[in-house]
Amino acid sequence: MMHERGTVNVKQQFPFSKDISLAFKNDPPGQWLSVLPEGCIRLNSGYPAPPLVPSKELKSAVVRLLDEEGDLPLHYIGSPRIPKLKEWIQKRLASRDVHVSEDELLVTAGACQAIDLIARVLLDADTVVAIESPTYMEALEVFRNYTEHYLGVPVDANGLQTEIFEEMLRDRKEKGLPLPRILYTIPTSQNPTGTTLSLERREHLVALAEQYDFLILEDDAYGELGFTDKPRLLKAMDRYNRVLHIGSLSKVVAPGMRVGWVAGAEELITTLSWFKKDLNHPFAQATMASFIESTDFDERLNHLSATYHSKCKAMLSALEQHFPDSVSWYAPEGGYFVWVEVPGIDTAELLPKALAAGVAFVPGKYFFLNQEEGKHYLRLSFSYASEEEIERGVQLLGEVLSKSIPESN
Amino acid sequence: MMHERGTVNVKQQFPFSKDISLAFKNDPPGQWLSVLPEGCIRLNSGYPAPPLVPSKELKSAVVRLLDEEGDLPLHYIGSPRIPKLKEWIQKRLASRDVHVSEDELLVTAGACQAIDLIARVLLDADTVVAIESPTYMEALEVFRNYTEHYLGVPVDANGLQTEIFEEMLRDRKEKGLPLPRILYTIPTSQNPTGTTLSLERREHLVALAEQYDFLILEDDAYGELGFTDKPRLLKAMDRYNRVLHIGSLSKVVAPGMRVGWVAGAEELITTLSWFKKDLNHPFAQATMASFIESTDFDERLNHLSATYHSKCKAMLSALEQHFPDSVSWYAPEGGYFVWVEVPGIDTAELLPKALAAGVAFVPGKYFFLNQEEGKHYLRLSFSYASEEEIERGVQLLGEVLSKSIPESN
Repeated sequence: MMHERGTVNVKQQFPFSKDISLAFKNDPPGQWLSVLPEGCIRLNSGYPAPPLVPSKELKSAVVRLLDEEGDLPLHYIGSPRIPKLKEWIQKRLASRDVHVSEDELLVTAGACQAIDLIARVLLDADTVVAIESPTYMEALEVFRNYTEHYLGVPVDANGLQTEIFEEMLRDRKEKGLPLPRILYTIPTSQNPTGTTLSLERREHLVALAEQYDFLILEDDAYGELGFTDKPRLLKAMDRYNRVLHIGSLSKVVAPGMRVGWVAGAEELITTLSWFKKDLNHPFAQATMASFIESTDFDERLNHLSATYHSKCKAMLSALEQHFPDSVSWYAPEGGYFVWVEVPGIDTAELLPKALAAGVAFVPGKYFFLNQEEGKHYLRLSFSYASEEEIERGVQLLGEVLSKSIPESN
Repeated sequence: MMHERGTVNVKQQFPFSKDISLAFKNDPPGQWLSVLPEGCIRLNSGYPAPPLVPSKELKSAVVRLLDEEGDLPLHYIGSPRIPKLKEWIQKRLASRDVHVSEDELLVTAGACQAIDLIARVLLDADTVVAIESPTYMEALEVFRNYTEHYLGVPVDANGLQTEIFEEMLRDRKEKGLPLPRILYTIPTSQNPTGTTLSLERREHLVALAEQYDFLILEDDAYGELGFTDKPRLLKAMDRYNRVLHIGSLSKVVAPGMRVGWVAGAEELITTLSWFKKDLNHPFAQATMASFIESTDFDERLNHLSATYHSKCKAMLSALEQHFPDSVSWYAPEGGYFVWVEVPGIDTAELLPKALAAGVAFVPGKYFFLNQEEGKHYLRLSFSYASEEEIERGVQLLGEVLSKSIPESN
């Protein structure tokens, strides 16, 4: 019963825009997603812990919303809770010393949409983008749709190495090479390394942006999940409106709701809004506002941070116990991830063995533009699995690893 | 307590992409939105009728979803209902003789996002886009971000005038002028004219696409809201995969849910998915699937069509009664809109008077690229207001009109 089709070659038939030619040069997005065997322990997923996803509270939020507002949140515009969500974001940012007006804030369908909109309005095919190396794989997937020109800045235990970045910038300037238009950074509990940029480097970075005339995209997806404290935001140090601050409720409420934001200079925010053609998700935004109004958010964050801290400690302790001595990692101060270096092992080749043993991780290569650089790294997530699963998963992975490095044992 | 800002001129500070320079040439989007006085009758809104928005049913759908699935629909991936939504869309399309595989269908955040993604992957700055003249203002707002080159094809009571379109194409071909890469059309119950393309013209249009090598974007937002029958889809006549079929649940369930889709050739759909960076709205999609599984959708559509038919008749009857003789309109066969020609009146100038009298409409100019062409038209919507409000609103507008055309009375 299939519809009859012509025999014309589809590829030849479609005159794609020249503007998207870069997209065809790359692997399709999502290569880092694995098909997991039944019962596999998910140390790969950047998902919140199921018990921390407020399913019951969101149900109550929807019931209250629709009982009180009827059809209002189901139209394009009309729910009184939608402006309240924006006000709440403004207040939370203000509590972190970032003061933005309504026109300096755009609510987005998550952080990734914000990154894409920013890339859309700021990048040309010859634009240089500075990124942390390694960085969030979905941000890489966004940027590579726009440009092939990157400056990868290495990361150490204190985050992006601003001293090295300054050298790169100085060198390029001296040689007359184009300077980056934007730097994309996750300064707090970085994905994938779990590292946090020191205060000194934060100050250095903001000064560099001014000196070398670039904008900073501060992706703060994990910024409220510090185990002990919350570092000062780059946006809070931003005297010249050079920082675009990206936030998200995915990691602290639920990713499936798709609520995030970007805060920055009004003209930039307005321009982003012109390219946001999804008509703003009234139901999701009103539901989130309804959830928030009945939640003690600080208490919620404290609970999340304590839980993830405990899970992180369980993972680090299991790593100490079960991983070979040649392996090393950064101890995170927050967030979801531990970044592990496994010298001599190709982690992409390791993955099928790990999956067969019942544990999943993400091979390091997906976090680098030059995937070769990530060959001996892997990202573990302590967010989704239970402490028991973490312990068991790390043990299983340790066994697979030990078999793969016979000389190290 | 405002954050200290530098005095740098923001406009000069931001190096926007050359690719978005067109966006700065136009008025900002949304100019057609009016601020309505309290109690104003909304004959402007393309919103569904509040009693037809299934607020209670969506509440039950969320309760059932979260009771049964817990956190699953609140993650990035995981709800079993998300693939079911896609299957349901495939089945509905199949019932209208459009047979597409899973890989030939992308679920989007409404029709407008689908239009934007298509423009994104298919249009260059020198691409010619053919559109109906007049057409959906938000589609115009999307296209003008990409190109300045248009072919506006006039519409009559039987929809887009394919004979005139063919002449335009033949003429351009003879003169060696670039032919359109895409035609954007709303063949059924068009926005804003309410007209429906005849079967003969549908066949003609699909043949023209093959002959003149363009793709058809078939926006079917109102296609299931025919008062008496549902015309054959262009996609159902599409032998060479030249039609991209765009659908939406905004007009038949609720726009605030943001669920739409695009169906077409696999390579095109895959490419669109690479540029969709909102990570797919799991909660909204799973909620919609939950709603659908407990809804007799055909019965729902019958009820919607009958209700809108009745509202349409109320509007047409009020127009007959209250509008001056010089005014004319098309009688719609479905959808939400009546397109009214008011000779000698600038409807943009009329609007403030109408708002002051307590009734809103959309001036015709917003539906044309060359806004001058729409000066003497206005769009009325019978979807949102009650029959009593429609009667009263048309009467009020008729009074304002009659005062503005003294010579015609």
